[in-house]
Amino acid sequence: MNLPEPLERLIEELAKLPGVGRKSARRMAFALLAKSPKECQRLAKAIDLAATEIQHCEICHGLTDQQPCKICGDSRREHSRICVVEDAKNVFTLEESGVFDGLYHVLGGAISPMRGIGPEMLAIASLLERLEDKEITEVILATNPTLEGEATAHFLTSQLQGRVARITRIARGMPSGGDLEYADSNTLARAFEDRLNFGS
Amino acid sequence: MNLPEPLERLIEELAKLPGVGRKSARRMAFALLAKSPKECQRLAKAIDLAATEIQHCEICHGLTDQQPCKICGDSRREHSRICVVEDAKNVFTLEESGVFDGLYHVLGGAISPMRGIGPEMLAIASLLERLEDKEITEVILATNPTLEGEATAHFLTSQLQGRVARITRIARGMPSGGDLEYADSNTLARAFEDRLNFGS
Repeated sequence: MNLPEPLERLIEELAKLPGVGRKSARRMAFALLAKSPKECQRLAKAIDLAATEIQHCEICHGLTDQQPCKICGDSRREHSRICVVEDAKNVFTLEESGVFDGLYHVLGGAISPMRGIGPEMLAIASLLERLEDKEITEVILATNPTLEGEATAHFLTSQLQGRVARITRIARGMPSGGDLEYADSNTLARAFEDRLNFGS
Repeated sequence: MNLPEPLERLIEELAKLPGVGRKSARRMAFALLAKSPKECQRLAKAIDLAATEIQHCEICHGLTDQQPCKICGDSRREHSRICVVEDAKNVFTLEESGVFDGLYHVLGGAISPMRGIGPEMLAIASLLERLEDKEITEVILATNPTLEGEATAHFLTSQLQGRVARITRIARGMPSGGDLEYADSNTLARAFEDRLNFGS
């Protein structure tokens, strides 16, 4: 026997979400239907609203419901530093950690020949444009410490050279609270290579 | 910094789904927004549609988009046997396994003094009504093999006694493919207690 068609369709759509297999999609669908139609519609409306109102900031390409986004439009932030990230969600992660008070630039991915993503598919031209504003003195490359992120950082460096006073890359090494026992050899290699003077 | 309001609201609504914490709700929200607005709206519409079109079958209380549901309305099924389950989703699980060809009755929960669920909150009266149809010769109690499901099965037996020729309970024991090493002692106790003659 098949599930009632609207239920089947709901499960199918839920299963498209990341980390949601058919089994959990089903669990979610039944949980939704156990609520009042009104509560279900709250979720439906939230999705609808987000889909229509959330757009990319014209300046940094981060997600926003206003132009420019709150960060780009905030005059109290440090406008001399731009932190380059792969994905819009990285902006929120960094914002939550509170470690950075400058501006962002979202590339929209990382260079990946395997997945057919070349540099021309990333928001690099608009980054170079932003650098024409001579107020900007540093670009911090915060792409992921993966093969793709690394390749992207290297490519960006070649493009940015001479256009901004300082280009930096976020540090790699042992994660705080980590255990040498469980660190992979790449992480350890980096932690030794980039070691800093310690003590007086 | 806060997330844009529509995004915040979407995450909040997604986090209400079972097994979805704030972190995965966030991952889902970003994945949704990475799609086209049209694709997002497909999910929104599916939720909306399911919320309005899916109802409880007037006979068995299972989930359906028609009255009576496909199972209750199917004359090729065995109308002499009713399988009683706690939850509407159990019907689909059993249907998928293909082990039962009769009708269902969804109680809408199990007796649980801890959670304040008494027998009067379950669809027991409508089950007794259904038994007035003398065509029904067997009620199979397929509530979960938990404390609550067990209590419910016992309570139902007291109510059904004399109203139907045969009352049965699904067997308990070792799950197929299980390992004695990992079975809990309740399961083992049951497997020994309910052991059957074997061989000739």
